[in-house]
Amino acid sequence: MTRPPNPTAFFRSPGRLEAFSDGVFAIAITLLILEIKVPSAHDASTVAELWRALLERWPSYFAFLLSFLTIYVAWSGHHLMVQQVKTVTLSLVWTNAFFLLVITFLPFPTALVAEHLTSPSGSLAVAVYAATNACSSLMYLCLYTVSNQDRTAPNRLRYARLNALGGVAICVACVGLAFVSKTLALLLVGAVWVWWSLPRREEPPLAASD
Amino acid sequence: MTRPPNPTAFFRSPGRLEAFSDGVFAIAITLLILEIKVPSAHDASTVAELWRALLERWPSYFAFLLSFLTIYVAWSGHHLMVQQVKTVTLSLVWTNAFFLLVITFLPFPTALVAEHLTSPSGSLAVAVYAATNACSSLMYLCLYTVSNQDRTAPNRLRYARLNALGGVAICVACVGLAFVSKTLALLLVGAVWVWWSLPRREEPPLAASD
Amino acid sequence: MTRPPNPTAFFRSPGRLEAFSDGVFAIAITLLILEIKVPSAHDASTVAELWRALLERWPSYFAFLLSFLTIYVAWSGHHLMVQQVKTVTLSLVWTNAFFLLVITFLPFPTALVAEHLTSPSGSLAVAVYAATNACSSLMYLCLYTVSNQDRTAPNRLRYARLNALGGVAICVACVGLAFVSKTLALLLVGAVWVWWSLPRREEPPLAASD
Amino acid sequence: MTRPPNPTAFFRSPGRLEAFSDGVFAIAITLLILEIKVPSAHDASTVAELWRALLERWPSYFAFLLSFLTIYVAWSGHHLMVQQVKTVTLSLVWTNAFFLLVITFLPFPTALVAEHLTSPSGSLAVAVYAATNACSSLMYLCLYTVSNQDRTAPNRLRYARLNALGGVAICVACVGLAFVSKTLALLLVGAVWVWWSLPRREEPPLAASD
Repeated sequence: MTRPPNPTAFFRSPGRLEAFSDGVFAIAITLLILEIKVPSAHDASTVAELWRALLERWPSYFAFLLSFLTIYVAWSGHHLMVQQVKTVTLSLVWTNAFFLLVITFLPFPTALVAEHLTSPSGSLAVAVYAATNACSSLMYLCLYTVSNQDRTAPNRLRYARLNALGGVAICVACVGLAFVSKTLALLLVGAVWVWWSLPRREEPPLAASD
Repeated sequence: MTRPPNPTAFFRSPGRLEAFSDGVFAIAITLLILEIKVPSAHDASTVAELWRALLERWPSYFAFLLSFLTIYVAWSGHHLMVQQVKTVTLSLVWTNAFFLLVITFLPFPTALVAEHLTSPSGSLAVAVYAATNACSSLMYLCLYTVSNQDRTAPNRLRYARLNALGGVAICVACVGLAFVSKTLALLLVGAVWVWWSLPRREEPPLAASD
Repeated sequence: MTRPPNPTAFFRSPGRLEAFSDGVFAIAITLLILEIKVPSAHDASTVAELWRALLERWPSYFAFLLSFLTIYVAWSGHHLMVQQVKTVTLSLVWTNAFFLLVITFLPFPTALVAEHLTSPSGSLAVAVYAATNACSSLMYLCLYTVSNQDRTAPNRLRYARLNALGGVAICVACVGLAFVSKTLALLLVGAVWVWWSLPRREEPPLAASD
Repeated sequence: MTRPPNPTAFFRSPGRLEAFSDGVFAIAITLLILEIKVPSAHDASTVAELWRALLERWPSYFAFLLSFLTIYVAWSGHHLMVQQVKTVTLSLVWTNAFFLLVITFLPFPTALVAEHLTSPSGSLAVAVYAATNACSSLMYLCLYTVSNQDRTAPNRLRYARLNALGGVAICVACVGLAFVSKTLALLLVGAVWVWWSLPRREEPPLAASD
């Protein structure tokens, strides 16, 4: 608001870009639960039948947990990037659009994995899931490049960039791996997100000039 | 908050109008994915069957992408307008209501196109989609007129106004065109949004007095 | 934040109460569209069949429009109340809870009206809808009483209070009227919201001391 | 923003953590209504049939009300905790993640209770519901411990901590109790949340140094 006008600024401040993106992340993460179908009282009318029906849904719980983790880490990384943005350029608005496009698409491959994991078609479902994650890491990398405008705080985010590149590579590999072992491919995609979420002791703190 | 009271102000500041509108845009854009139905493991139990089932859903992906783009551009335009608002008048609150009404309605024609595009009924589905987009461009134009209160920053938004008028005209034409060629009509509606999202080099930057 | 601590304050500032309530209003208003079911390409495969199927859904469009209007007016009234709140007391937090409870419940009677309006069971559906609206007006009145803490700006909101009382009375009457004429009852409930949304010329502006 | 940089800070300010969490709470609380299924006009075409069909859905209304209350109290407690946070550490970001995971999961056991309460499988549904509530209270306790960084305002939140511990104990007991009396177990889980929401007169006000 109090900043001098900037010829490359598309929005005056990043406030609404954050608010809108937060909304999209929050909704995508909460919609995941709608994909876990409740067993009907007609099909599972006793405790034993309901217990079996609930256990049979394990791919749904697993896919829910994995996608929840994915979206949460993506949101956290999005925040780390946007907090260093000073000028909301048109490129940033559009890179953000495609990042959010992948995030809003994620509930579809998640439901695909939940539905197909235990049948022979599961390999393709896992491959689609890994490909979506590869796109997500790729858009993360693009967003990082576009948002790091003054290049004065590279220490903190260098890890994110390397991680994103590694994430793209691993997820692309998992697209092929899914047809060999779908379980291994899915665990590797999950491992990428667990890795991203680990605290990094060696990471230097934000400098005072940031 | 610190502004002097204004006899035409309905809300004291535009903060909550933005927050509420952001929420509606974010939810409408994220709900679109619910319209892409997951093939059941019963109907598509092998990799080949699932692959075919996924490819058959191309109108769903296309409609998802088109409506995502539409809502994102509408949100971005909404932000450009609201950031120049100084007084939230009753007219603004109600013009905003009807703009949001069209945005929240959009998932319905989107699902209609996804379901009917490849059947003979697709012409009507595309006509309804084009008509909804015409309403959206029309409400955008109304919102522009109502929100541009002091008329001191016309340079930046003149393009938006002309584009909105052009958008209404093209979308109305597409309602008729849909019965001649539904593909052409749909591509033209999409082209309107791609056009709106292109950077405008000739556009003068925000002046310091803005 | 900079306010002196207040022994009756439950939250330090109304910011998050607004943000959370905005989210609930925005989601409830956007979920309404999910109740309008898309005709399947199997049942309506030609333009004529789809046209008929779309026209048959008029109670859905009507219920969508009415509930959209209801929630938008409720949101706008909520904002007018919360902007005069200085201290978020425990009573305010709980009155707000029950107001939001009615708002999140509204999509259910809306879907009920859409499904039953043209069948004999429609009278009961409209009665349930009117009863929900009566609860909504009643909670609005409670929220008004709880939020108007210092009673220094009564001019602007006196109308809201009278309107709320009138709204409760009309909606309660419509619960009975629904069994005589469901159309008249529904139009009357709609008229309450249209009336609330009209500009009030006689309304004095916010005084500078507000 | 104006705070000196802090070596343990992961985010610069808690603003977006609150905004994202508010979004998740608001969506989870609003999605609950989607679980109440509208009786079709085909099955219930007269007023008497619709009346019976609506009354038969009482477990749905009860589960809706109980989960609404649960999420609202959880949101309110989340706000009380986050408003005392000065530094958003990595532990806080991840404890918050698991708290939100439980909240987004809650619509699933809610729908399970609504579907199974009146059949013999209801005991297991209630046990799953109680277990989810136990996790929710446990995560609340973890979040409390992580967010209370300077330990200078223990008076206000000591009750929350004790309540959380009591809530975990009662909910764990209800998992077993569900197989003896599902009604009693459900009422006890509800009583925990009613208890948490009661005003506490003995609670000392926020001290001026807070």
